[in-house]
Amino acid sequence: MSRSVVLLSGGMDSATVLAIARDEGKQCFTLSFDYGQKHSAELGASRKLAKQLGAEEHRIVKIDMGQLGGSALTDQAIDVPAAGGGGIPVTYVPARNTVFLSFGLAWAELLKADSIYVGVNAVDYSGYPDCRPEYIAAFQAMANLATKGAVEGQSVAIRAPLINLSKADIVRLGTKLDVDFGQTVSCYSADDSGAACGACDACSLRREGFESAGITDPTRYQK
Amino acid sequence: MSRSVVLLSGGMDSATVLAIARDEGKQCFTLSFDYGQKHSAELGASRKLAKQLGAEEHRIVKIDMGQLGGSALTDQAIDVPAAGGGGIPVTYVPARNTVFLSFGLAWAELLKADSIYVGVNAVDYSGYPDCRPEYIAAFQAMANLATKGAVEGQSVAIRAPLINLSKADIVRLGTKLDVDFGQTVSCYSADDSGAACGACDACSLRREGFESAGITDPTRYQK
Repeated sequence: MSRSVVLLSGGMDSATVLAIARDEGKQCFTLSFDYGQKHSAELGASRKLAKQLGAEEHRIVKIDMGQLGGSALTDQAIDVPAAGGGGIPVTYVPARNTVFLSFGLAWAELLKADSIYVGVNAVDYSGYPDCRPEYIAAFQAMANLATKGAVEGQSVAIRAPLINLSKADIVRLGTKLDVDFGQTVSCYSADDSGAACGACDACSLRREGFESAGITDPTRYQK
Repeated sequence: MSRSVVLLSGGMDSATVLAIARDEGKQCFTLSFDYGQKHSAELGASRKLAKQLGAEEHRIVKIDMGQLGGSALTDQAIDVPAAGGGGIPVTYVPARNTVFLSFGLAWAELLKADSIYVGVNAVDYSGYPDCRPEYIAAFQAMANLATKGAVEGQSVAIRAPLINLSKADIVRLGTKLDVDFGQTVSCYSADDSGAACGACDACSLRREGFESAGITDPTRYQK
């Protein structure tokens, strides 16, 4: 049984990815990041989801990206905006996926894992550059040269199984794989209990996904 | 005056790189990592060097790589070996430069810096895969796709000005640029005062560098 690192944010996409990796027969080691996000309820969600979905081990790594500032997700001085608007939004966290995948790569090498699963999606997404297929391909090429394992013939595959799916596809796939979407937290402004604001970009994409899939939305919203 | 992030470990290579970046007219923002290294004296050295060499701002980011384990540099259960031996040594830290450069990329984007300077060297080095020119080129290609800045036309150049120099070349260049090598800490087993063991790979490469350059070695060794 080969090992995989799964980046698990606690949102619906990464939970679905964990279910896919398990379905593909992987022994899963889930990795979450406490990076100073305001919506830290997702960390509690990731812990529950790792257990529900049969992860072998779950780690939360604390990294100090908030100290760098500059994003509405980590900086108290910048408000999380309502959905919509053009371009790359202020919720973008500089180089976040690069930092997360780099830690995943380090852990994968230590575990002798053959893959990293990541829930990036380039269809119904917020327009972040580090969610695009060409970015994932470039990270893969870099990873193939970065590690002792890769040099010695044990490279780590970066798997992004959702990258070309719509949010509705993800809802359908996750439902088929018994993901408990009621436990997942997508909202950028979730309260401490994990209840969603219903107004941000992430809430908007999520709600539309359930609607398009014709599946009941189990999201708990703030009053 | 354009801005650069300079990865500064406190060793002689990164100190020389900082001096090069300053000499090239850059406003320098130095970045060090407290990653659970046993030889944490290098953090004190990096602070002093940043000041001596005119950095605009110096940050030490704490990251929990030691928690992952697996390297003689971070794991109390693995001893730092004496110099020599074949292959990639146990002092290799999984994906370390990838993690460090990723943080550098995040900070560079926030600062609107146009470059990251890194002191990797592929001549007189310990054989780490993430010090090779092909690795740096692949990181550059990935970085060009990773950030909002890059997508909007402000990419960050990864500069590795020492990559093809011998240790003796680095000693000569640093001396010319007034680097105070007596303040730099290269040793993997430096004591709290920064005094070197004289036996590890890093000490051995450093001593040979001064000898070949015909420049007096200012390193303080442990009694």
